[in-house]
Amino acid sequence: MSLHPLITELTDAEKAALCTGAGFWDLAGVPRLGIEGISVADGPHGLRRQDEDADHLGTTDSRPATCFPTASGLASSFDPELLARIGGALAIEARAAGVGVLLGPGVNMKRSPLCGRNFEYFSEDPHLTGELGAAMVRGLQDNGIGASLKHFAANNQEHSRMTVSAEVDERALREIYLPAFETVVRKAQPWTVMCSYNRLNGTYAAEHRWLLTEVLREEWGFQGLVVSDWFAVNDRAAGVSAGLDLEMPASSDGPARVLAALESGELDRADLDLAASRVLTLIDRARASEGPAVVDTDAHHELAREAARRSAVLLQNAGALPLAGIGAPIVVCGAFAVTPRYQGAGSSRVVPTRLDNALDALRAALPDRTIEYFADYDLAAATAAADAAEVIVFAGLPDSAESEGYDRSVIDLPADQVEFLDTLRQRRGRLTVVVQAGAAVTLPFADHADAILLAWLGGQAAGTAVADLLSGAHSPTGKLAETIPLDLRHTPAYTAFPGDGTTVEYREGIFIGYRWYETRGLPVAFPFGHGLTYTTFAYSDLEVAVEGNSATAGFTITNTGEYPAAEVAQIYIADPESDLARPVHELKGFARVELGPGESRRLRVELDRRAFAYWHPRKGSWHVEAGEFVVQVGASSTDIRVSQTIQLDGEPLPGRLTPTSSTGAWLADPVHGPTLREILGRASGGLAGVLLDNPELDFGRYSMLVGTPLNRLCRIDAVDFDVDAINDIITTATAPASQAHAAG
Amino acid sequence: MSLHPLITELTDAEKAALCTGAGFWDLAGVPRLGIEGISVADGPHGLRRQDEDADHLGTTDSRPATCFPTASGLASSFDPELLARIGGALAIEARAAGVGVLLGPGVNMKRSPLCGRNFEYFSEDPHLTGELGAAMVRGLQDNGIGASLKHFAANNQEHSRMTVSAEVDERALREIYLPAFETVVRKAQPWTVMCSYNRLNGTYAAEHRWLLTEVLREEWGFQGLVVSDWFAVNDRAAGVSAGLDLEMPASSDGPARVLAALESGELDRADLDLAASRVLTLIDRARASEGPAVVDTDAHHELAREAARRSAVLLQNAGALPLAGIGAPIVVCGAFAVTPRYQGAGSSRVVPTRLDNALDALRAALPDRTIEYFADYDLAAATAAADAAEVIVFAGLPDSAESEGYDRSVIDLPADQVEFLDTLRQRRGRLTVVVQAGAAVTLPFADHADAILLAWLGGQAAGTAVADLLSGAHSPTGKLAETIPLDLRHTPAYTAFPGDGTTVEYREGIFIGYRWYETRGLPVAFPFGHGLTYTTFAYSDLEVAVEGNSATAGFTITNTGEYPAAEVAQIYIADPESDLARPVHELKGFARVELGPGESRRLRVELDRRAFAYWHPRKGSWHVEAGEFVVQVGASSTDIRVSQTIQLDGEPLPGRLTPTSSTGAWLADPVHGPTLREILGRASGGLAGVLLDNPELDFGRYSMLVGTPLNRLCRIDAVDFDVDAINDIITTATAPASQAHAAG
Repeated sequence: MSLHPLITELTDAEKAALCTGAGFWDLAGVPRLGIEGISVADGPHGLRRQDEDADHLGTTDSRPATCFPTASGLASSFDPELLARIGGALAIEARAAGVGVLLGPGVNMKRSPLCGRNFEYFSEDPHLTGELGAAMVRGLQDNGIGASLKHFAANNQEHSRMTVSAEVDERALREIYLPAFETVVRKAQPWTVMCSYNRLNGTYAAEHRWLLTEVLREEWGFQGLVVSDWFAVNDRAAGVSAGLDLEMPASSDGPARVLAALESGELDRADLDLAASRVLTLIDRARASEGPAVVDTDAHHELAREAARRSAVLLQNAGALPLAGIGAPIVVCGAFAVTPRYQGAGSSRVVPTRLDNALDALRAALPDRTIEYFADYDLAAATAAADAAEVIVFAGLPDSAESEGYDRSVIDLPADQVEFLDTLRQRRGRLTVVVQAGAAVTLPFADHADAILLAWLGGQAAGTAVADLLSGAHSPTGKLAETIPLDLRHTPAYTAFPGDGTTVEYREGIFIGYRWYETRGLPVAFPFGHGLTYTTFAYSDLEVAVEGNSATAGFTITNTGEYPAAEVAQIYIADPESDLARPVHELKGFARVELGPGESRRLRVELDRRAFAYWHPRKGSWHVEAGEFVVQVGASSTDIRVSQTIQLDGEPLPGRLTPTSSTGAWLADPVHGPTLREILGRASGGLAGVLLDNPELDFGRYSMLVGTPLNRLCRIDAVDFDVDAINDIITTATAPASQAHAAG
Repeated sequence: MSLHPLITELTDAEKAALCTGAGFWDLAGVPRLGIEGISVADGPHGLRRQDEDADHLGTTDSRPATCFPTASGLASSFDPELLARIGGALAIEARAAGVGVLLGPGVNMKRSPLCGRNFEYFSEDPHLTGELGAAMVRGLQDNGIGASLKHFAANNQEHSRMTVSAEVDERALREIYLPAFETVVRKAQPWTVMCSYNRLNGTYAAEHRWLLTEVLREEWGFQGLVVSDWFAVNDRAAGVSAGLDLEMPASSDGPARVLAALESGELDRADLDLAASRVLTLIDRARASEGPAVVDTDAHHELAREAARRSAVLLQNAGALPLAGIGAPIVVCGAFAVTPRYQGAGSSRVVPTRLDNALDALRAALPDRTIEYFADYDLAAATAAADAAEVIVFAGLPDSAESEGYDRSVIDLPADQVEFLDTLRQRRGRLTVVVQAGAAVTLPFADHADAILLAWLGGQAAGTAVADLLSGAHSPTGKLAETIPLDLRHTPAYTAFPGDGTTVEYREGIFIGYRWYETRGLPVAFPFGHGLTYTTFAYSDLEVAVEGNSATAGFTITNTGEYPAAEVAQIYIADPESDLARPVHELKGFARVELGPGESRRLRVELDRRAFAYWHPRKGSWHVEAGEFVVQVGASSTDIRVSQTIQLDGEPLPGRLTPTSSTGAWLADPVHGPTLREILGRASGGLAGVLLDNPELDFGRYSMLVGTPLNRLCRIDAVDFDVDAINDIITTATAPASQAHAAG
């Protein structure tokens, strides 16, 4: 990367000052050269613009802004185009507020349903997360506002987040925790990436050169700036060396520490120049797109409502929904119907421009039905609900359950709600439960509810959106971007979350989310990708064209029901046999399509090499094995409708024969194996050869022979192996020139 | 340890030669001094005495010996006294054959049901394994024959066993994989310990100084000799340095390698002297107890029969057993009724002195009932069985499924058996299934069988023993020493077993066996510790006396049924709250008691400090937390009959405050916390103090404050913390003298 042209004009002190924030939300700029800093603001699902003089230990509110659904909900739309439009709306609000960079989106994986910040993250699947994150970044940046892709990386819990070391093996990093970042970087080039608080395998993310420079920039080609999460800097100078360009917010000693390290030689001036250049470039970019902007709050509210509709997931529906326009009185229970949970707590919290409520919206949508409302989950409500022909219970997590800064300790809804819903087991009419929560909760009433609508944290228009769906004005189209488990104890990181305060071991490795439940054969409440509509869809005519190690899948979806709706077709790849353990299947593509009744559409999804590859630790890169793969297209991860088996050529795997490799590995070597077979076969008067040709004669002894390291055979006194000949093979094969070819 | 008096008389070459075997089964001795070597032989469940000129690639049989049930079965007896008697019988057979050391018992943990050698191992629980192993070693050694405790350590699979590195965290080693060895060493001082083939965390067990010297000898006080598993030596000199005294069998280069390393200074002569001394001492010990012995093969057969009876586990019984003396014809299906599976393959295989069969034994036991027999699982058998009033199906794994040298790839019984049993779902009469297998298998017919008797691999008298139990001549009394899972995918090491050929990561850590299933809330077919009898037992009057951090549990068991039988009472300890994740509960004691109908016995079980402790990685030792523990007494791990909550004082945990420890950890420090609280509270005009006193005001910001490393607070520009005062605290507290006291 070439340096910013002004860099030569800056003193070291100016560069150091430029690389640390001024105040809480502003960059420092270079006052001597008239370069003013820009402002940044929180806001993955709405702009959180705080005044600079806000008290950062207090709870000072920010200026009103449109509150969209949080990421859990948006992800359930499986709709990149929606995310791009929301990004565009956020950009307009940011520009109007004089903000140059919006601190989002967050693309961390949901390792445990208990992570306090899950509501701010998209999914348990990296492919889905990457595509949605990239769309949102494009939406922001196409409208002149920079994104800050966060929190890089392996920040999957709030507990001890500023001190804990996430201990993650490289395969899990490469396959699960990094790909969403990689996709967003490669597809959308965010202006900034925000490093996380935690340590990764012992090193603070803010000082992690492998992460911030080798992987992010050198491998993925990131061109932007890396900013610290607020107060994430431990040693500012080490951060500059590692590739952390900008410290936020202002610190009492950041610039001084940089200058001292420069002086002592600990910090290379070239690294500081690079960091300062990137800050200047960011300021240039933000400055170039500054200008007046008018926020159409009504239009943004409508967008928030559309987003909330597309976010909600109809988990089950035994004929209770949509509500009929005429009928007996409806009983609505639960204060969330009037004062909704619609966002989480912490840095993402927005003061909304307005706030819909579902009860009013339902009454407006169903003018001919009487709707009785009970705020409390009490006896009066239970009695009315038990007798009603139709009851809608609004349930959800309390506000205090979901926040930045701490994790949940239980996965369940509050006991009073669970008990209230349990009393409705014996009832007269139909029961619909609307759940407001930003993360997976257990749904113990699922076995007796007629319908469950998971509304997530739906933003300021959630109330009207829920009414749109319950009334049938719109079909629900959301699909779960995270599994709803039956039992916290079944979740992948249970017993290894959140660790001991010092470290957290990602012992489940690549097996999180549906990769875990399905590979482990565990029952779940509702699987990844699941979501119902008011219509039905048929899948047909799958055709997969293979070219090299990639493929294109074409298939047809037909709306076979009576409502217009959208379906999210999901493409999973299964690798039935592989050298290393792999999940049962993995999401590698998806397509959302809106279809009227009877309408059909042919869809095409590209599956590149990476769709079939896994990270091979020994190879140190992605690897596609030769052999069979199954391309599955379905309506959820467990509802595969059409599939096709294909054959890929695969890629070579460099061999690694050493003197201590097993005799079996040596025998499998195409070059040296046959000679070795010949030599070994002569031992014991030919008995060894008989055994090698007929393992079934004594599979135990055969296994002993082929399992023994080759060089150890030479030490065996009891069998007359030709030691010199074996040693010749070892010497020849392990000479540097002979190590290129493949072996088992 | 003092050296052997003769060591000064030996040349280096003689020492080196002494430390490697002569031939396959013999030690070398020192010919010049007239010291002859001794012989050793395989044989955890029966003596496998091979002639020296046997071909070790072939399948030459050994001399006849009593074949006792294999370890899976013996463990199900929960009967140390039985194990001691079998050890005694093995010793007599060994002495009669001129063998000084018997290569067993094997006390490795059952990490996966697929391990090919599970039949040779006792259990998934280290407490049970340690007690049984110690009893067997005492039985052997009290009768003058040395034991060889194997395979030390973390050898939990056959796949790649000679090359694979078991990657196990220290807590799992200390709590799961090492304690059985520790118990046997501390309680029974085996003459020898055999190192395993595999590497442990990268280092061959045969060269693992931490394992063979620091832990085994220095911590546990092992006084004996360490011998290699056969061909386990990689670098003989490195082995001597690490504490591997004896290489077996003879190798072409072992002594020469030792002498060269001595010459080069790579090997310390003191280490060689120690190893050679231990070999001399072992020879002395064996020589001292040499002498004539007469084997009473009839008595040993009777002991094998008693052992087989106590090994069998009655998994379920809906009134089908015991069989009535008079009734309609019984149909017996399956060739195992006549040619039983009674042991596994590999180095433990014994040529039995005789071999009982169940069909003959049943006919003898029930002379008044007609017994029809069908060898094949075919249509004729299915038709007869479906129509019979009483059918007994003998099922089991084929001989080739269980062997040293390779693992199983599936957990199921052969498909033809499963299908045959499935056809009996629709039938007229009662179905009893007798299962012969050395490891857990799935039992898909459990939902429709009336009775299931798991006979394990019951040794040469298994046939008569099964008849003893089916006929009711004896009550079954065995309890499962390993969980029978419902699904291979639910097993703890699934996806991480058997690794990639180079390494196997023990990702499940301490959670194996019932520790896994119960902590994870997974359903199983039959839980650990489960086993029925023909009578019923009542538990009562639990009284737990606490003294310091240990306790004594007293309780009463009453035979409330009509048959004499034995009950195995199991004592589990639960630690409801702990800093580090712990299993739901752990077996820490058991007592087998034989009671006639109506008879009662008061039992007492000691629970020492270790019964309540876990391995604390930071403390680097065992740790008992202060607080509540539950002492549970039950008939299985999921059938707790009486329990009592107790309170322990616990033990101190050294603090480890550093400048980067979280502010919360500093605040919790009894010495520095109050001062820090005072200083922090003044920030933001006292707002910080309000927040610290009232976290609920804004738990997110509170969490941020207490989660921030203390030294990082000093860098925060936006809040007016008193940096100098904070730095004073850090300096004072982290001065070496101040690090003794406890902190969170």
